[in-house]
This record gives sequence, structure tokens and C-alpha cells, in this order.
Amino acid sequence: MTAIKKPVVCFLGPVASYTHQATLDRFPEDKYELLPVVTIKDVFDTTQSGRATYGVVPFENSTNGSVVFTLDHFADRQGLYPDLSVCAEIYLDVHHSTPLALRQHRPPPAIFFPPSLLASATTPPRRANALRPPRTRPPQEPRSRPLVPLTRIERIYSHPQAFGQCTRFLSAYLKGVETVDVSSTSRAAELVRDDPSGTSAAISSAAAARLLRDQGVEVLAHNIEDREDNTTRFFVLRADSRAPGPDDLLLDDGSSPEQQPRDQQKTKSLLSFTVPHTAPGALADVLSCFRAAGLNLTSIASRPSLEAPFQYVFFVEFEGHLSADPEGKVARVLEQVKQVAQGSRWLGSWVNQRR
Amino acid sequence: MTAIKKPVVCFLGPVASYTHQATLDRFPEDKYELLPVVTIKDVFDTTQSGRATYGVVPFENSTNGSVVFTLDHFADRQGLYPDLSVCAEIYLDVHHSTPLALRQHRPPPAIFFPPSLLASATTPPRRANALRPPRTRPPQEPRSRPLVPLTRIERIYSHPQAFGQCTRFLSAYLKGVETVDVSSTSRAAELVRDDPSGTSAAISSAAAARLLRDQGVEVLAHNIEDREDNTTRFFVLRADSRAPGPDDLLLDDGSSPEQQPRDQQKTKSLLSFTVPHTAPGALADVLSCFRAAGLNLTSIASRPSLEAPFQYVFFVEFEGHLSADPEGKVARVLEQVKQVAQGSRWLGSWVNQRR
Repeated sequence: MTAIKKPVVCFLGPVASYTHQATLDRFPEDKYELLPVVTIKDVFDTTQSGRATYGVVPFENSTNGSVVFTLDHFADRQGLYPDLSVCAEIYLDVHHSTPLALRQHRPPPAIFFPPSLLASATTPPRRANALRPPRTRPPQEPRSRPLVPLTRIERIYSHPQAFGQCTRFLSAYLKGVETVDVSSTSRAAELVRDDPSGTSAAISSAAAARLLRDQGVEVLAHNIEDREDNTTRFFVLRADSRAPGPDDLLLDDGSSPEQQPRDQQKTKSLLSFTVPHTAPGALADVLSCFRAAGLNLTSIASRPSLEAPFQYVFFVEFEGHLSADPEGKVARVLEQVKQVAQGSRWLGSWVNQRR
Repeated sequence: MTAIKKPVVCFLGPVASYTHQATLDRFPEDKYELLPVVTIKDVFDTTQSGRATYGVVPFENSTNGSVVFTLDHFADRQGLYPDLSVCAEIYLDVHHSTPLALRQHRPPPAIFFPPSLLASATTPPRRANALRPPRTRPPQEPRSRPLVPLTRIERIYSHPQAFGQCTRFLSAYLKGVETVDVSSTSRAAELVRDDPSGTSAAISSAAAARLLRDQGVEVLAHNIEDREDNTTRFFVLRADSRAPGPDDLLLDDGSSPEQQPRDQQKTKSLLSFTVPHTAPGALADVLSCFRAAGLNLTSIASRPSLEAPFQYVFFVEFEGHLSADPEGKVARVLEQVKQVAQGSRWLGSWVNQRR
């Protein structure tokens, strides 16, 4: 890294995506060159290859759970990412920059159904064979209402995660409307801009809406996510462990903070492991290593190993930091896990940013 | 239940869905009335209300992991399903009845691009800002090839799980083509039949393809799933614990097999629990209960609790059966979990069907 060239930070694009906002939060543009890439795989590839010093990927959302595409790349079943590890986490509160439904501003002649027709107009066709049982309780109300009637909308573009965060609004106002998965919420907004029929909508961020305001995109509803406390957590990846993490840069004294002992509860680590398919007891054996070491497990996730059906790659997050660890607890637990797991891999340690 | 009326078994429809095939596997139509419903929620609602004695839902796929919609209903955050529990599991091997790409048989004039144009014709537009890094290794080959060129296809309908099971084929032959999530693979096939443009395809089962063969639907490719050992596991739900499970009916001596002691390793149970958000150590405490009781954990999954951000509902499966348990190990471990978890719920015990 020279004084002239800024370190490159790649992120899941396009510009104005939620990952972009999270990246800007920790990597200011005067110090870093920000590079949007198309897929989560591209973030892993670009960072592993050294074309970017850091890569930013979404890891989990408080409403919708794990981002399985990210977990699948951490599983690294083909050994493509031997050098990558997590060096920081970023929380992005999506309460203030909430998802929005968008519509193109050049609409064709619209037919607005009277309210009595609305229900049948938005009921999906061809369900004659199927039974929908009576509701035992009223459904949970969405947090917001549309600014205009949505009867014209025939199709909604968004990222699968965003659909999962807005189920109440969709169920209340857009029931039966076709949903189309696209690679990002910003891309969804662009597709709406490019559809001349005016019958498409998107779920995207306020930032993406602002970018397209002059190109005919109109906001149909604000704050449509199910929960006020809708938060996404992102991970910062690096391939070169000597590259200082973004948290390190926040320190004033110029020392390398990863060498300093930290309060164990203020740091976290990520580990993946597999257990022998024929010895299910090994899962409890691995987990008990953490208890024996006095390291708190904070979460567990799993994905298919794809080595044998219903064998899993497990991901555990726990309190503690591999290098800032005066008692050597983390190194010791990683060694113990190796004894009982079929395979295991430390995937990074970072400073806990949880509020 | 009278001798005249057959017990009703509802399942995630429509007719010819994978869940339908799994249901037929264990609930023959001469003994049961099979009832397709539209959503996973409908299966839970219909079974809880007593309108069906049993309900069949997909739980996990060996390639694509947990079915999060099913986990979310087991989490039962609103207490809608107090009486439901799992009484049996069904494995459906989807190797022989593999997903198929379908096309309508009344095509408009088709333009077949020469191979040199294919790449650009199927590359998604508007990615000028984004960088796709060079591949470090060749991608994994799909298991099959299309029977005809797929250049005409502009849109693919399927269930999200099916898209996740066919990533190699999609990436090799349908890169950049719009994917549309629909409620089932059978529904996807119907949408293709109903599209007069002939530019739509679906990923669905051989059974669904056969049903629509006379209505102009043509198979474009066979066996397009990523893995030969692609298997889905289904759960059978019941609200009335006195209703005999389908496994019980297989016994010849007429006794109630749930009262008989079984080999612990031949049965499994499902438990959900939450831990206090402020005491992450409780997760390890709960898991160590199983180790202390000598009950093997076979899998762990988690979903957001939606009580507080990044608090989870954990699901553990373990060997053992609540009622067929001479030593009372399972009842004891459930009691111990109650002491350390914030909340917990036994979600069923059944005979292991794993081959």
C-alpha cells in the first residue's frame, strides 16, 4: 500500500445497495477506493485474488435470518478462498433508510378497481383444487399503508431477503402479485425504471429511490418492512492478515490493536466445522469444547456439506479473539475442536460492534 | 374417525408436487383422503384446526438446506399451533423423478442464436459499474445438457428451493435469464402451459411434466439438479396425539408401537428453544444437557426469534423418543432444558427413516 494508491474495498453492488451504505459507514471514500461487484461470490473472488484489500458481504438480517449465499461461500467446499477471514463486522440499521415500493412515472392508462373488486383482482388464479383454511387469528398488521392504490401493480422486483423482511405489507396490499427475485434491491429499482408498462414495482432502499427520482421513479410506500428494528449485519473480509482492519484504524495511538489484549466479551470469532456423518455425537463433543474453555457461543448456523446427504457444515460464533487473547483460550479451543471434528476452520476474529 | 370416513391428510400442493409424491409414499389413497393446500402455513392451519388429521410439509433438502418457511411455522411465534407435533418423517429421493425444464409446445417463431452470440444474448444488461473477476477455477459442470438450445427462454418459473438445487445447470445454460419464484414446482409448470409466448420455462418434477404433456408442455432437459443424491425430507404433523402415526400402521401385531420401547438410535425428536439475549452462555448450557443425558444431537438450525434483533429460535434434533423411552432420558432432558433455556418446546418424536 503506497501513499498514492488507496486500498480497494469491494462490496456487493450496485451503487446505493444496502451493502454500499454499510461499506461507506466504515470505509470513507477519501481513504478507500470503493468497488461495486455483482454477486457475493464476486466479493469473495475479488478479495481472495488481491484485487481488493477488503470485501464487504451481508451476513444476516434480524428479521430474515442468515444470508445462505454468504454461508455457502464461507463453507468454501471447493477450497477457493484459503486466505479469507473476517476482520470486522458492520451493523446497518435499515429503519431509517427503509425499503420502498417504486413505480415508473410514465404510466399507461390505469384502471383503478373500486375497493369491492380489489380482493378478487389481487387473488392469484387457478387455485380450484386447493383449500385455504379460515384464519384462526387476524394477521399481523403491516407498519405502513400505500400512498396510492396498488391495483395496477402486476409484478414486484426485489432481493429474496427484502421480500422476507416485508411479508406483512406484501400480504396485506400485494397478495398474489408475482414476485421476481433479482440480485439486489438497487437492481430491482433499475428494472422498474426500465419497464415502460408502469405495472412493475420494486422493494428497495430510500437511497436507490433518490438516485432514480429524476428518471421517473415514484415512491408508492415508505417503511414497509415488518419490524422497526430491522437490522442487517455485514462482514468485512480480507485475504492479507497484515492489512489493518477498519476497527484498528479507529484507534488514536497508532499501535496495532490486534496485538493488544481485549476484553473477551468485546470480540468475536467465527469457526466452521463438520462432524463425521456416522458419529452424530461428535456435534455435542465439538460444542462442549467451548463450554470447557469458558468461551460463550453466541450463534450457530448450518448448511449442507454436499459431501453426503444431510451432513452439515456448522458455523459457530463465539466470544473471544484469536490474536488478542492473552490466555490463549481461543487458540486452545481451536486445537481441541480439531481433535473431535472431521474438519474445522477459523474464519476470523473481530471487535464486537453490537450496540 | 368412523369406518366410513377416511382420515384427511393435507399436503403442500398442488397435485403432483414433490410433497404430494412424499405423501402418497406413506398415505395410500385407498386409506386416506389427500387434500392439497396452497402454502406451508395452510398445512399448519388445516392440521391445527382438525380439518385434517395429518399434514405433510417439506423440512429440508440435502442440497439446499432447511426450508425456512417450515422452520418459521415451527417457531410458532404467535402461538397459533399449540397442538401440532411431528409424528413421522418421509424421505423422497428426487434422483429418479428429477426436476425438468419445460416449454410450451405452441411456440412463436423462434430465433436461435449461433453459439457465438449466445453469451451476449444471455448476459444481463446494465452492469457497467460492476466488476466480475476472472474465474480462478473452472465452474463445476452441470450433470446434464439441454435437449434443444435454450436461447429462446426469457424467464424461468420455479420454487426457490428448486432453483437452489439446480445452480450448475442454470449457471451453464440459462445465465442471466430472469428467475421467478412461485409457490410450487407444479404451479411453475402450469404457468409455462398458460404462457402463449413460448419464452417461459419451469423447473418441476417429472410427475408434473407428465400431467401437462397433452397440454403442449415439452421437456427441455432431464436430471438438471446439481447432485445425484438430491433428497428432500418431509415431516408429518398431527394435532391429536392419539391419531396413530403412519409408521405405527406398518406394524402387524395391532399394538400401539409408541408404547413399546424402541432402540434410541432408531427414533428422533425435535425441540425448539430460545436463550436469554443477554446470556449467550445459555446456548452452550442447553446443548450440554443432551451430552449429559447421553442423547446424540443430530442437527441444529436457527431462525430469528423476532423478539429482539439477533436473538434466535434454535431447533435441535436428537436421537430418542419421548413416549417410547423406558429410561425416561428424553423427558428428563426436556425438563433440564427448561431450567436453562428462556423458552423451549418439544415438537415431536418419530421413527428414524434414514436409510
